[in-house]
Amino acid sequence: MLAPNSIAIVGASDDPTRIGGRPLHFLKEAGFAGEIYPVNARRERVQGLPAYRDLAAIGKPVDLVIVATPAAAVLDVMRSAAAVEARAAVLFSSGFAELGEAGQAMQEEVLALAQTAGIRVLGPNALGLYCAESRAAASFSSLFEQGLPRRGNVAVVSQSGAVAVHLAYLALERGLGFSHWITTGNEADLAVHDFIGALADAAEVSVIAVYLEGARDGRALVSAIARARRNGKRVVVMKVGRSALGEKAAQSHTASLAGDDVVFEVAIRDAGASRCDRIDGFLNAIYTLAKASPIAGDRLGLLTVSGGVGVLMADAAADTGFELPPLPPDRQARLRQICPFGSPINPVDVTAQAMNDMSLVTAHMREMFDAGQFAAGQFDAGQFAAGQFDAGQFDAGVAFFMNWLKSGHLAPALEAALADAVDDEPAVPIAIVGNVAEETRKALEAKGFLVFEDPSSAIEALAILREQSQAPAEPRPSGKTVAAGDVLAERYNEAEAAGLLAAHGIPFPKLTACSTSGEAADAVRAIGGPAVLKILSPDIMHKSDLGGVRIGIPPSAAETEAAAMLAEVAASCPTARIEGVLVAPVVEGVADIIVGARRDPAFGPVIMVGLGGVFAEIFADTATRLAPVMIAEATGMLQSLKGWPLLNGVRGRPAADIEALAEVIVNLSRFAAAHAEGVEAVELNPVSVGARGHGAFALDAVIHLS
Amino acid sequence: MLAPNSIAIVGASDDPTRIGGRPLHFLKEAGFAGEIYPVNARRERVQGLPAYRDLAAIGKPVDLVIVATPAAAVLDVMRSAAAVEARAAVLFSSGFAELGEAGQAMQEEVLALAQTAGIRVLGPNALGLYCAESRAAASFSSLFEQGLPRRGNVAVVSQSGAVAVHLAYLALERGLGFSHWITTGNEADLAVHDFIGALADAAEVSVIAVYLEGARDGRALVSAIARARRNGKRVVVMKVGRSALGEKAAQSHTASLAGDDVVFEVAIRDAGASRCDRIDGFLNAIYTLAKASPIAGDRLGLLTVSGGVGVLMADAAADTGFELPPLPPDRQARLRQICPFGSPINPVDVTAQAMNDMSLVTAHMREMFDAGQFAAGQFDAGQFAAGQFDAGQFDAGVAFFMNWLKSGHLAPALEAALADAVDDEPAVPIAIVGNVAEETRKALEAKGFLVFEDPSSAIEALAILREQSQAPAEPRPSGKTVAAGDVLAERYNEAEAAGLLAAHGIPFPKLTACSTSGEAADAVRAIGGPAVLKILSPDIMHKSDLGGVRIGIPPSAAETEAAAMLAEVAASCPTARIEGVLVAPVVEGVADIIVGARRDPAFGPVIMVGLGGVFAEIFADTATRLAPVMIAEATGMLQSLKGWPLLNGVRGRPAADIEALAEVIVNLSRFAAAHAEGVEAVELNPVSVGARGHGAFALDAVIHLS
Repeated sequence: MLAPNSIAIVGASDDPTRIGGRPLHFLKEAGFAGEIYPVNARRERVQGLPAYRDLAAIGKPVDLVIVATPAAAVLDVMRSAAAVEARAAVLFSSGFAELGEAGQAMQEEVLALAQTAGIRVLGPNALGLYCAESRAAASFSSLFEQGLPRRGNVAVVSQSGAVAVHLAYLALERGLGFSHWITTGNEADLAVHDFIGALADAAEVSVIAVYLEGARDGRALVSAIARARRNGKRVVVMKVGRSALGEKAAQSHTASLAGDDVVFEVAIRDAGASRCDRIDGFLNAIYTLAKASPIAGDRLGLLTVSGGVGVLMADAAADTGFELPPLPPDRQARLRQICPFGSPINPVDVTAQAMNDMSLVTAHMREMFDAGQFAAGQFDAGQFAAGQFDAGQFDAGVAFFMNWLKSGHLAPALEAALADAVDDEPAVPIAIVGNVAEETRKALEAKGFLVFEDPSSAIEALAILREQSQAPAEPRPSGKTVAAGDVLAERYNEAEAAGLLAAHGIPFPKLTACSTSGEAADAVRAIGGPAVLKILSPDIMHKSDLGGVRIGIPPSAAETEAAAMLAEVAASCPTARIEGVLVAPVVEGVADIIVGARRDPAFGPVIMVGLGGVFAEIFADTATRLAPVMIAEATGMLQSLKGWPLLNGVRGRPAADIEALAEVIVNLSRFAAAHAEGVEAVELNPVSVGARGHGAFALDAVIHLS
Repeated sequence: MLAPNSIAIVGASDDPTRIGGRPLHFLKEAGFAGEIYPVNARRERVQGLPAYRDLAAIGKPVDLVIVATPAAAVLDVMRSAAAVEARAAVLFSSGFAELGEAGQAMQEEVLALAQTAGIRVLGPNALGLYCAESRAAASFSSLFEQGLPRRGNVAVVSQSGAVAVHLAYLALERGLGFSHWITTGNEADLAVHDFIGALADAAEVSVIAVYLEGARDGRALVSAIARARRNGKRVVVMKVGRSALGEKAAQSHTASLAGDDVVFEVAIRDAGASRCDRIDGFLNAIYTLAKASPIAGDRLGLLTVSGGVGVLMADAAADTGFELPPLPPDRQARLRQICPFGSPINPVDVTAQAMNDMSLVTAHMREMFDAGQFAAGQFDAGQFAAGQFDAGQFDAGVAFFMNWLKSGHLAPALEAALADAVDDEPAVPIAIVGNVAEETRKALEAKGFLVFEDPSSAIEALAILREQSQAPAEPRPSGKTVAAGDVLAERYNEAEAAGLLAAHGIPFPKLTACSTSGEAADAVRAIGGPAVLKILSPDIMHKSDLGGVRIGIPPSAAETEAAAMLAEVAASCPTARIEGVLVAPVVEGVADIIVGARRDPAFGPVIMVGLGGVFAEIFADTATRLAPVMIAEATGMLQSLKGWPLLNGVRGRPAADIEALAEVIVNLSRFAAAHAEGVEAVELNPVSVGARGHGAFALDAVIHLS
């Protein structure tokens, strides 16, 4: 698909401005080195090349077939492609799944044919793709009208053709270049994750910029991103449809199942991607990731010619988790000597004095970012954590110069002063910020600086670079754990659900399912103290709302209470199947927690944990991960809760049994992963967690089957 | 200051590039209509004008004196200014409060002299000001080097000269014009709020754009903003130093007391200002406020040529609180007919089909924003709330066109199509978004459209316009309520604090201060049931941490428990003055709430309320307002808490006595306002709130005196 030796264009037009004429024109202009075969039954030659009446007439192997015909003709074209053993097809044609059921059916037919024939398909309804190395400009986008886009280290993979084009224009204006530009359209066969997987191995690629409206296969997306990260690629993702309004708009626009945005966020961050929510921020991130060396730590050095903007940048640094260590005293002293009205700490303010003497900028930049002193390799995280670092060792810098770099009389001197401040190239990434003339921007970039218009934007982009400078996480456990062969029943009442989950390592208090109030009384007596009685029915979800839970019932009252409860619930829910009474001992923990699992449409089984009771609803304090998770991940989920101090002991409250709770999370996540097909959701609400060493017990269990 | 009839420049230089030469040069270039008197003892003429050896030598009245001398000379100059009865002075000179204590003392001396003489002062350490109407360019900023900035409806008031210059350049590039441009420097006398107050009455001003690092007088700032808003001005504020890092940077940079950012936010929003945290967003807001008619409601219409960006814009709409009602069915039907592959709902997607037929854009814009159908005056908030509105009536619109308006072959046709879509001017504010060529931008703006590069930025700016389109709130109660003449004691133990606050309308349970354990036992017997014993000491703040609180003590055990508590606390706090035991009945409410008051350095007394117990700390769920508040405001504070459902009754919990709690808040806020000088902080923790009708009682009270 990306590196074909030969390309046939079915529906090739002699007019280079028409959809069928454009790819031919672009491939010729691009200097595509392989064979190009225009297919057009009505012409001898097309755009100067011999034309073929159909694919069979070519008589030589065809690697890639570009299909630029109406939707109705695509199936026939694919049959001919299969007959000539084509390996790949790019389908421009629209009128498939994006138009509803009939189109969906036609798309499935095309896909089935392609799969039988072993042809991989891009599209349909796609703007096509471009690979700089092979010069395969298999697209009809206006992007290629002015010749091939500049070659570079950025790969764009986008579900939207329009967004891919818009981004490309913006990135080209910003001086970036592309290794790949891929739009996936309806993703009948190949999806964004397939291309990320391919780009993970492409030497030319440094940055993979991904635009998504939904993930066709969330797990495959996560694996592809993780692999690209492990191969040293920087990955930044923009996914729209974060909000309810956006999701609604996406549904009317695309057939992709978006899944829950929280799950998406957690999954791709886990895989090591950064995320952007705005086009301008996405572009700034791509620019920074494409150009800058890694950021080894959190220490940002700020240089400003305006104290006010210094404060603004300090706010932005705080927002993005950077630290602002002061310059070392000796450096402060030297700067104070040459710039007495400035501030040499951090933010470092060189003040408007520099307007009259630009060598001050050079001196300040050298004290802050001097290569000899601050080589990137010197960073020692342990020293840093212990506060024993050389405070002058910034990991990145931002320098704000208002409009000076656009001013006819200031810009040349300042540009020279900045060039003087670095020997070969900056030792750490440094963003020059302000209103900057185009030529000056290019000169500064040639010297190795990043250039931005807005200080907050610059710091946000550096924060993403810092994220992408961190080592990617180890591969996560596969979601395809298979259970110990248990076959799901058709339905589970509470006792049965507890039994099934207990077999998967979830502790429950001893439960006794009783058919009659007499049996219930026996069970309470066996407990020997106050007990909990719960109605046993596969049809009643909210037992307590219907009077189906009685707590703290002593043996003496058990029979009466059980009988009353059975009668009451039967009267209020005449259609529910009532199977008896469940008897359990009273369990008192130090915290009530909700642990749940459910199936996300895009990412499959996920596990969720949150504080129980009304606080879960009101403060929405939950943590979510893809299932299964391991103990460390489950503990991390608990630690990420705002309410973590409540579990960990606060103000004299006893600490809860975190280990036992983490094990419940792990085991439920494994159960959910093992039953990814059959189980829609499981809810343990509450899990009562005892004090450290006293365990955690699920006091209620509901299993929703698919 | 803003409209002088005559201006003298002390330190006037013949060199128009020097600080003393610049204002003279600018005033001449500006065509300032009044008299200009250069003061320079060593020259006969300065820049072609007769020079005076000192102010006295002028021999005519001088309204405004510009002082461009070193700091050491300023005091003498001000003496001469007083002698000639000058009314105002602009002090460029730096070397005052910004440099520390010596400078601060000198600044105070200058101020005292000015106040005695009745001279109002701008600065020192200020870049000066400019007023378009009077053409008083009393500044040495490079901003005036290219001639006067374009005249317009935007007034900039900034504590930072550099930020004011940067903003002005950016705004001029964006096509905006200025009525006023004011930098306040050290604010020895006149501060930002004074100028906002003046601008509130200036007919030429539509937008007041304020940059702040701290408010010298928060209350005056609030009053000035509120007055400007009531006079129909739109006010947008950027304040830096939001974060701890930013605050630290601000402290090293400015002498202003920033106060708590939460208080600042609440106060200026209450006064009716909008707030921006980034330079780019601030500029977009100023641009939009300067150019667009009001937005009457929340209904945003989105037009796009890319479904993906439609989804992105829907997300941004959700983030900013806009609604996306669908187009009415008849309009949808007409659009479906002309653009079958598009989406006519909202976001409306005209698709790339429009590239070949730009009349589709005109047709879509007309169906969405047609003036006849959607006149702004038709909005009926009641109908809207009831869902009975004409869904086509959008209150604002955004239309995204990728790079089409920068493309040589698409831009002219699209520009014409957009111009065709409006008769005279757009009926509601409409933002055209994309990569747009400069000339095209100007043409679209001339037609009444707003133009943006980034869709998220456009929607954020429209959201600020919507905020500023709302009627400003009524004037808030003055903070200067005077109490019923009570004089504060030197210190208050808990019983005394409760007594004082009870006299101000805060209910407490009946408290008995007892000197001995025997008296305590009598008091518990008088209650007749279990009681609370608390150690009584003005020196112990965290009683319960020291064993100084015992709850639920029956009469029989009271004497023993009280004696044990006295002995225990005395042993653990040997230096604390222990005055006895406070006996109170056990009060059981349905919610524990913290109500507190404290004095903000910038805004004076503020009142705070939050959920009590560990949840307050962990979830930081509090609401803050300037004190005093009235009942409606206090209730609004409670409703703004995330935990409001806990108070209002959730999941079978009884609703709390909101009215009684609101009264506690109001009364404590009045107390704090009345004792703004003497009281540093008051904490009622907890206030136990009973079920509806059962009142709210403060169970503990601490008063910190100044």
